[in-house]
Amino acid sequence: MTKRSDLHKKNLQTLFYPKSVAVVGTNKVKGTVPGDIFTNILQADLNGIIYPVNPRETHIGSVKAYKYVIDISDPVDLAIIVFPSSVCDRALEQCGEKGIKAVIIISAGFKEIGEKGLEREEQLKAIAEKWDMSFIGPNCLGVINTDPASRLNASFARKFPAEGNIAFLSQSGALCTAVLDYAQARNIGFSKFVSFGNKADISEIDLLYYLMDDEKTKVILLYLEEISDGPGLMKAAKDVIEKSHKPVLIMKSGRTSEGASAAVSHTGSLAGSDEICDAAFRQAGIIRCDNVEEMFNIAIAFAYQPLPKSEKIAIITNAGGPGVLTTDRAIKEGLTLAEFNEETTKKFIRSLPSTANIKNPVDVIGDARADRYHAAMTGAILDENVDGLLVILTPQSMTDIEKIAEEISKIAFSSKKPIYTSFMGEADVSTGIKILQKHHIPHYSLPEAMCKPFASTLFFNKLTQQKIGDPVVFTDVDKDAALSIIEENLKAGKTYLPEYKAAKVVQAYNLPVVPNELAKSEKEAGKIADSLGYPVVMKVMSDDIVHKFDVKGVVLNVNSREEAEKTYTQIISDVNKRMTDVKIDGIHIAKQVEGGTEVILGIKRDPSFGSVVMFGLGGIFVEIFKDVSFRVAPIDKESALSMIKEIQSSEMLMGARGRMTMDIDSIADAIMRLSQLAMECPEIKELDINPLIVLKEGKGCFVADTKIII
Amino acid sequence: MTKRSDLHKKNLQTLFYPKSVAVVGTNKVKGTVPGDIFTNILQADLNGIIYPVNPRETHIGSVKAYKYVIDISDPVDLAIIVFPSSVCDRALEQCGEKGIKAVIIISAGFKEIGEKGLEREEQLKAIAEKWDMSFIGPNCLGVINTDPASRLNASFARKFPAEGNIAFLSQSGALCTAVLDYAQARNIGFSKFVSFGNKADISEIDLLYYLMDDEKTKVILLYLEEISDGPGLMKAAKDVIEKSHKPVLIMKSGRTSEGASAAVSHTGSLAGSDEICDAAFRQAGIIRCDNVEEMFNIAIAFAYQPLPKSEKIAIITNAGGPGVLTTDRAIKEGLTLAEFNEETTKKFIRSLPSTANIKNPVDVIGDARADRYHAAMTGAILDENVDGLLVILTPQSMTDIEKIAEEISKIAFSSKKPIYTSFMGEADVSTGIKILQKHHIPHYSLPEAMCKPFASTLFFNKLTQQKIGDPVVFTDVDKDAALSIIEENLKAGKTYLPEYKAAKVVQAYNLPVVPNELAKSEKEAGKIADSLGYPVVMKVMSDDIVHKFDVKGVVLNVNSREEAEKTYTQIISDVNKRMTDVKIDGIHIAKQVEGGTEVILGIKRDPSFGSVVMFGLGGIFVEIFKDVSFRVAPIDKESALSMIKEIQSSEMLMGARGRMTMDIDSIADAIMRLSQLAMECPEIKELDINPLIVLKEGKGCFVADTKIII
Repeated sequence: MTKRSDLHKKNLQTLFYPKSVAVVGTNKVKGTVPGDIFTNILQADLNGIIYPVNPRETHIGSVKAYKYVIDISDPVDLAIIVFPSSVCDRALEQCGEKGIKAVIIISAGFKEIGEKGLEREEQLKAIAEKWDMSFIGPNCLGVINTDPASRLNASFARKFPAEGNIAFLSQSGALCTAVLDYAQARNIGFSKFVSFGNKADISEIDLLYYLMDDEKTKVILLYLEEISDGPGLMKAAKDVIEKSHKPVLIMKSGRTSEGASAAVSHTGSLAGSDEICDAAFRQAGIIRCDNVEEMFNIAIAFAYQPLPKSEKIAIITNAGGPGVLTTDRAIKEGLTLAEFNEETTKKFIRSLPSTANIKNPVDVIGDARADRYHAAMTGAILDENVDGLLVILTPQSMTDIEKIAEEISKIAFSSKKPIYTSFMGEADVSTGIKILQKHHIPHYSLPEAMCKPFASTLFFNKLTQQKIGDPVVFTDVDKDAALSIIEENLKAGKTYLPEYKAAKVVQAYNLPVVPNELAKSEKEAGKIADSLGYPVVMKVMSDDIVHKFDVKGVVLNVNSREEAEKTYTQIISDVNKRMTDVKIDGIHIAKQVEGGTEVILGIKRDPSFGSVVMFGLGGIFVEIFKDVSFRVAPIDKESALSMIKEIQSSEMLMGARGRMTMDIDSIADAIMRLSQLAMECPEIKELDINPLIVLKEGKGCFVADTKIII
Repeated sequence: MTKRSDLHKKNLQTLFYPKSVAVVGTNKVKGTVPGDIFTNILQADLNGIIYPVNPRETHIGSVKAYKYVIDISDPVDLAIIVFPSSVCDRALEQCGEKGIKAVIIISAGFKEIGEKGLEREEQLKAIAEKWDMSFIGPNCLGVINTDPASRLNASFARKFPAEGNIAFLSQSGALCTAVLDYAQARNIGFSKFVSFGNKADISEIDLLYYLMDDEKTKVILLYLEEISDGPGLMKAAKDVIEKSHKPVLIMKSGRTSEGASAAVSHTGSLAGSDEICDAAFRQAGIIRCDNVEEMFNIAIAFAYQPLPKSEKIAIITNAGGPGVLTTDRAIKEGLTLAEFNEETTKKFIRSLPSTANIKNPVDVIGDARADRYHAAMTGAILDENVDGLLVILTPQSMTDIEKIAEEISKIAFSSKKPIYTSFMGEADVSTGIKILQKHHIPHYSLPEAMCKPFASTLFFNKLTQQKIGDPVVFTDVDKDAALSIIEENLKAGKTYLPEYKAAKVVQAYNLPVVPNELAKSEKEAGKIADSLGYPVVMKVMSDDIVHKFDVKGVVLNVNSREEAEKTYTQIISDVNKRMTDVKIDGIHIAKQVEGGTEVILGIKRDPSFGSVVMFGLGGIFVEIFKDVSFRVAPIDKESALSMIKEIQSSEMLMGARGRMTMDIDSIADAIMRLSQLAMECPEIKELDINPLIVLKEGKGCFVADTKIII
């Protein structure tokens, strides 16, 4: 962590637990932001002293007001600035003078309104740095801390939420009000609730590090509209997960189209920002959510119940249809229906009616009352083959809904296995649902919706039990050689490296380029071909030609010296027929590798996450099925292997169905070397190795063609 | 339609609109099915006379009771039987004698309990047929008709729903209670509500045909657990859609795993019942829904709003985040954000604040009140580039939620373009949502959820404007030849046709099998090869060998008479080395077709839908990506072409990216011929043509290998 982020962590503690708060710029007008914030703090019964600051009032709501923050004689921990944006800098400067370290700037009118606002924001940052202050905002809804030790409602949100162990961080203020409303209806409480707005100073990353050590927080939810520091976010999430075992759930909005646009390489066109975001989140252990509902569906599973040990669930229902629907979804989510052991089956035969289905999903039949749910649940939960229960109820005329809810709550209280519920319908089941919510039993209005939270908590539980290896740093690489080729071309104003130069760059990182040489004459071509051994591939080399195939600039299967010489002349004449004014550097001759499988490797620089490495099977697999995988660099061996295994067509390499097992390890090695190249030569904008020819297990792989955009 | 289904249609009119109803087997005990049904009918204020029938009571709830239904002197239109299953047959018989044509059998204890129950069900069917009666059930919740002309609540559901234009049909009774509860909370009304249980007599197909002409019904929802007559269901849905322009939404539960199991062919293993169900529904124009929520999300769009003319929408929001999320989803669903014309843009500049985003999605900013929503909505809806509005609201402290809801309702009332809404949150927005629901403006708690209903209504609107061609019936086929080969093998107890016989079957349907002949000696092999022209493919033919490649039974690229003769002996010796006791019929020699693209065609018999035809690209495309498409036979030309185009790898055939355009028409022709073969020879259980080699446009295609399981 940098010095400034260390400072933020310290100042955030003051910000959330202030003993004295100044509301700078508040006024007497109800229904306005400056007026409401003061009232909100007062009404939430802050565990501390509140000072209204207003240059023109003597008191606000019977509380003595101060002209300026420096007029307050007692020390002040936190200042909340609600002045118009044009005077925020002066107010912040005075806070600095007063020795205040924690500030929330609610005011809008900054980066979001353009140039002028951005300038103002820069001023605020400079002032904060000068005084070692930290601030949240500007342009935010504020901060809430439900901890009774603080009870801070420094926000203009309509309501103060219940206490709970979920922290919610949001870049959008508008979403915050909707979320508070949504959560209240479901009896979901929060530990901390932060709208961080333009994040000019304190960012979501600083907040993650603060929450990592916050005892009141068990689950962290984050809504992001743009990611400015992808690697930092990944690192923070990884640290939080590894050190505190708190799950990080992120909802990230992002426009669908953009992407593709002007990309020259395969990697460039396939690596859309949303796919990269998906990959990066998975890599960091972050659980990505599509919408508010899904986010809270998963959050309450984490917040309320133990984590499942395995994917083996039991479904208990009083109606067949919903049981089947839930089974279908469970299997799609990678869960399995547990097989009950003999003892459980015997219990079920004894305690359930003969019409009941005693296999998983257990159907206790429409006329089931609480006793039957009790029998089914206790039977299943004591079975060592079962690691979680999904309980479904449909309201029939004889169903004692509330009693069943109480029964479930009791069983869940004494169980170490997670129990989720779905009481279907609305009005009839509402009291039952309230009972479940009161006892912190996750409830979902659709029974299928229980499956993803179960899969997510299971994923997380497994994740926290893994040890993640450090990325290898190869020392047998020649970084300077690679950089000098790139710089030389950059200086010459070139944005595209011709293949033989691109090959040298990857060769400098010890990627196994096929033996090759550049021939400048017919004679030389014959000599080189002879020395490499047949067959060879011959390709025209020219800075002016990007798509060599299109101008007949590539010939495969050249099998003798005579053929090589003839081909040399042929290629040059073919190219010249198709392009005028083209400067040909020579003909590139390389050994033709046979009997391998073609894969593609690539690098792309993403504006949010930096260097990203792509892997896929070559040819039609990439073109048509876009069957590729991504990781953000640096990449350790395990991640490299998982990149290879996660593509749909991986069995083409794995030796399934009578196919040969190809040299996976050598691909992983190439991926890691490429990852290091991407990190150390950030001037590379896009890179394609297409194909990398992979041979049988133990035989290695060869780079047959490299394209680099700088 | 059959005679019986004609009768059902007539009797269903009596069933929904009875002037007199007998409740056969009712009693005085509240809280039981027989007791509650009587009370429910009475309380719903049926527009007709109700007669309780009970052998031991003189009156039920102050209404004079009759011992038997035949004791009622006045005519009776509808009988509802709630007796135990053991005496239902006698009760039904008496209904027949009494001249009652419409019956609902609520009682359980039939097919669902096994053999004995199935027998009872068969008895009921026989009695109904004898008396020209029609009955719904047994084992159901009953029937509701909200039409004031009837007001029939012949069910034991807890509540009588509001009047509306949505019909709901369900195989599951348990789901009905949850659905009624769900709908009530959202102010969703129904026209007809039917739990049809075991559908021993009247099926969902009969109900679809009834609802087709029911003036009160605009949208039909159907929950199915099993499909007994797939083609019938498809036909009924098509008729309803074509003749009455009413959408049919089906939620079908189905177990995930089963499928695959013991299939021998590619087609067999790829055509899981769920994939076939998906394809069949799409083919029939049915909209498949995953769960209750999605079903009603789409249903209210159909029920309340005009259908969209195009995919061009405008999003109006007071918060950026939800606008972006909705845009993302809209694009995934195939919708596009309309570009506003100049006039609209000018209007927006005039009427919205400078901080607003006046491009689509329009952000009217957090402090927007009703006037600003009004300006944005009227501007967008009058724009000829916009064909629908999605309106999002997040509750800010200044948002006049109810007024905005009223404003939206007013605009929607006078607009011919659909308007959907999403007021985010819960408690704060609840009154606003009630206003929207009252005015029949579709409301969705998640803004993204507006997109699928829009896409579904658009799909449907386009569908109803299409003319669907009749499947071609080829007359140049020799059905008898195909059947006799199959029968001969069936008689011999064979389930697998050797290739040269399978080839004859498809040849009888004029599928272009590559020139081929069976050689029985070395000499003959040479002669045949010579006459076919080189290269040829040679394959061992034996009933004992299913996987010819595995025993070295296939040799490609045979290029001369000598080679053909040598290969003949070689294959026989190779096979004999690998398999003992194998009876070889000879060596099959076929012309080797070159320069084509390999595709796969297949037939499978599905227990629900009958003959299904599959299409896919050969080799790895089918094996790894399962990139195939299905249609239920018969298949018209347009469907055949759409099968080819809808696979992901179709561009391999379409001539994209410098590839040749292959002969698509000849594939379509082969698909249609295969479809006819499947219909006319139902003994074929599975069939693979793998590969069908497709040549360049105009050059046709060739069947290179056929496998048939009978």
